[in-house]
Amino acid sequence: MKPYCIIGQNYRVDKEMIKEYCSDRINYIQKIFPDGEKYVRILDTDKITGKDVVLINTLYPRQNDSFIETLFLIDSLRRTFVRKLVVIIPYLAYSRQDKQFLPGEPVSAEVIIKSIREAGADQLVVIDAHNPQSLRSFNGCTINVLVSDILVNKALEYVENPIVLAPDKGALKRVEYAAVKYGLEYDYLVKSRDRITGEISMTSKELNVHERDVIIVDDIISTGGTIALAIRHVKKQGARKVVVAASHGLMVGNALEKIKGAGVEKIILGNTLGIKHNDSTIEYVEVLGKALELLS
Amino acid sequence: MKPYCIIGQNYRVDKEMIKEYCSDRINYIQKIFPDGEKYVRILDTDKITGKDVVLINTLYPRQNDSFIETLFLIDSLRRTFVRKLVVIIPYLAYSRQDKQFLPGEPVSAEVIIKSIREAGADQLVVIDAHNPQSLRSFNGCTINVLVSDILVNKALEYVENPIVLAPDKGALKRVEYAAVKYGLEYDYLVKSRDRITGEISMTSKELNVHERDVIIVDDIISTGGTIALAIRHVKKQGARKVVVAASHGLMVGNALEKIKGAGVEKIILGNTLGIKHNDSTIEYVEVLGKALELLS
Repeated sequence: MKPYCIIGQNYRVDKEMIKEYCSDRINYIQKIFPDGEKYVRILDTDKITGKDVVLINTLYPRQNDSFIETLFLIDSLRRTFVRKLVVIIPYLAYSRQDKQFLPGEPVSAEVIIKSIREAGADQLVVIDAHNPQSLRSFNGCTINVLVSDILVNKALEYVENPIVLAPDKGALKRVEYAAVKYGLEYDYLVKSRDRITGEISMTSKELNVHERDVIIVDDIISTGGTIALAIRHVKKQGARKVVVAASHGLMVGNALEKIKGAGVEKIILGNTLGIKHNDSTIEYVEVLGKALELLS
Repeated sequence: MKPYCIIGQNYRVDKEMIKEYCSDRINYIQKIFPDGEKYVRILDTDKITGKDVVLINTLYPRQNDSFIETLFLIDSLRRTFVRKLVVIIPYLAYSRQDKQFLPGEPVSAEVIIKSIREAGADQLVVIDAHNPQSLRSFNGCTINVLVSDILVNKALEYVENPIVLAPDKGALKRVEYAAVKYGLEYDYLVKSRDRITGEISMTSKELNVHERDVIIVDDIISTGGTIALAIRHVKKQGARKVVVAASHGLMVGNALEKIKGAGVEKIILGNTLGIKHNDSTIEYVEVLGKALELLS
C-alpha cells in the first residue's frame, strides 16, 4: 500500500506525482503565535494511525524556521502512532558545515540530522546531500538521492558532445554518476577556499574544453561565486557553450547576475527548494519523483 | 573549581556575577552566511578541554534562531571535549505547548528539550519552566529554578500586607513557594481558555482582596491579556494597589499598554530574556544568580 504524504506548505509539488506515489495527502495547519512561536497541527490524524507516512519538508528558505517545523511535524506524527515515518528533506540546510574546519566549530549538519532522528523519523531521504557521509549521524536508514543524471539529461538539450565538469574534486562523484550514465567525458576543476576569508580561487589545470561545450555540475549554488569563477575559467580555456546544472539553486543575492555575467548558456536547477527564481536562463527540473520512486 | 561560562551574545549579564561564579568567560564568534545559515565558533577552546562548562543561552527573542544557536554551541563544546556541560536556559521557548491539547499537535516543549539533550548537554537548568514536568523528557539531570520568591520580595517594596495571587490554578505552585517564604496569604483566580479561539475568561471566585494590596505572580507575560484581565478582576472586587510579577516578560505587542490600562502599580520582571523594555512601570530583577548559585 502506498504511504500517506504530508508536504511542507512552503514546498510546491506536482499534484499528479503525489497522486502516483501517495495514498492520500494529509494536510496540516500552521500559524505563528503573537510571541513568534510556531504552531502546527496535523489534520485527519485518524487516517494515518498505524499507516506508513512520508513527510516532505525542505529546509530552504528560512532554514531555522523550516527545521523547527520539520521537528514539530515529526513529533506530531509519532504521537499519532503512524507505523513507519520516512522523512524526505529535498534540501538539507547546514550540509556544508559537515566537519570541524577550525577548532571550536560545530558540525552543524550532524546536529540537524541527529535532531530529525531524535524527533522520531525512522528513515531519512535527502536529495543530493553535500556530503553523503554526514547522513551516517542519523544512525538509522538513510538514502542520498543522486539527481545529477536528471540534471545532465536536461542540460544535454542545450549542448553538443559536452565534457561534464565538477567545480572541485569533492563534487566529482555526482559528475561521474551522470557522465558514466550518458557516456560523457568528465573532469574536475581545482578549487581552493580560504577558510577564514572564504575567498575562492581556481588554479589552472589542463582541461579538454577547447572548442567544446561544457556542463558544470554542482550540488548547491549559493552566492554563485564558485560557478561564475568556473565558467570564466573554462571560457578562458576556449570552451564554447557552458551550461550549469545544480541540484539546489539558492541563488543568493546577485548570484544570477554573476553567473549570467560569466557567460552561462542555461542554468538547470532541481525543484528542491521552497522558492523558484523567474528568469529565462533558469530551467527547473522535477527531481523529487526519483526520491519517491525509491520508496515505492 | 568554578566552571567556565559561555554566554549567548543576545543575553546581557552582570559582569560581576559572572566573575563570582565562573573561572573565566569564554567567547564565541557568530555570523550569518549570505544564504541565511548561522555559524558559531567558540574561541580559546584549549582553555576548556577537560573542564566543566556552563552555557547560558536564552530562547527569546527569535526563538528558532536562538534554539539552533544553542544546539550548535553545545555541539561545539562537546567536540572540544569539555568534562561536564551544564546548559542554563533562562527562558525556555515553546514551554506552553507542553502537551497535546488537540489531536495532531506536537509537544513542542519536549522536542526542544530532547534536542538539547541529544546535542550533548549533561544537565539542563531552566528558570521557572511553565510546566516543570516537561523537563523529564530531557532524560537526565535537570533543575527548575523557582524565582517567584525573588520577584515577590521586590514587589513587597511597593505594597503593604498584600495577598499573592496566581492568575490560574496551574500557576499556584510558584505563588505558594513565594508566599509561604514571606508568610503571605495566597490564592488563585479561575481562568479558562478556549483552545480554538484562544480567548480567555475569568470566572468570579470569592477572593480576599477587598481594600487589600495584591501581587499577581505568573511565569510568562506574553500579550498581557491574562494579566490585564486578572488586574481588572481584582480591582472590581475592591483591591487597592496591584503589582504584577513575572519571571519572563515577553510583553508582546501592546501588552504593556493593556496592563497599564488595567491599572497596574508596578511590573516586576526577571532578567531572563535577550530584550528589556524601557518603561518606568517596569522593574527588572536579577534572577540568573540563583541558577548559578545552585550549581556552585
